[in-house]
Amino acid sequence: MNENDISIIKNLLKELDETVDNGYGPFLAAIYDENYNLIAKERNSVVKSNLSLAHAEINTIKAAEEKLKTYNLAPYNLSIYVTSEPCIMCLGAIMWAGIKKIYYSAPSASVEKITGFYEGFKPNWIEEFEKRGIKVFPNIEKIEGEKILEKYVKLNGIIYKPEN
Amino acid sequence: MNENDISIIKNLLKELDETVDNGYGPFLAAIYDENYNLIAKERNSVVKSNLSLAHAEINTIKAAEEKLKTYNLAPYNLSIYVTSEPCIMCLGAIMWAGIKKIYYSAPSASVEKITGFYEGFKPNWIEEFEKRGIKVFPNIEKIEGEKILEKYVKLNGIIYKPEN
Repeated sequence: MNENDISIIKNLLKELDETVDNGYGPFLAAIYDENYNLIAKERNSVVKSNLSLAHAEINTIKAAEEKLKTYNLAPYNLSIYVTSEPCIMCLGAIMWAGIKKIYYSAPSASVEKITGFYEGFKPNWIEEFEKRGIKVFPNIEKIEGEKILEKYVKLNGIIYKPEN
Repeated sequence: MNENDISIIKNLLKELDETVDNGYGPFLAAIYDENYNLIAKERNSVVKSNLSLAHAEINTIKAAEEKLKTYNLAPYNLSIYVTSEPCIMCLGAIMWAGIKKIYYSAPSASVEKITGFYEGFKPNWIEEFEKRGIKVFPNIEKIEGEKILEKYVKLNGIIYKPEN
């Protein structure tokens, strides 16, 4: 991890903070190539688009694959940057897309504690990813990431709980 | 589980068997309500649609939510039927959609052995689902489900491996 990676996370957090009350979910993701060219950047749009699948990572992977016209991003050596740790669904999506590195800010424990969202059962996922050659860089600017989630909750952002 | 559930799986397997060489992936899913009305039915379209996310379950959940105009299927008491055990991404997608029951034919161990697809790390997922009140009915018409996967491989269906 270098200054560029930290800067990308900081910029995502800044953008999310400034737009946290715009009706989208409080999660933002971006995919960059190894030369730090932006490939795609998308927000969680579950409520806006009436689609439970529309997490930030899912929307961003879809946009990247549409842009590069392929279901296999592996040859492009891409990294995904997310304002929070990916949920179980998005971990699968990241593997199947062939993304090589993950950088994120707030861990799932914070997301669950602050927002009440459930992130799924995924014990030892970082070790599982490392086994597959996917590098994981957790908890970057964690306090700032958590603050934005707290702001979302204070602003009465929708917390959807599909189990209810 | 009753005769209707078994019949739905048998019909999905029949349709998949008859169309296994049509360019789609060898997986088919359907969502039904508790009165056995079909809500949505979709095939894996990863290669056709150039989208690694386009598993049968993802496509079917998307179609169901578009039809019912909601990101929360929980109030509809829906069941998903799949020709193979869901991968880690689709397990998350099924939870977040609020689906209440899962019925499937071939287990992931068979999918991985026969096709070479990797299905992800998901130890004890059936217990985790039961804890959340989601019922799981595995290995329905398992031998037939496995035979169709073998047929797909023999017909030289594309086996994509994003890690390569």
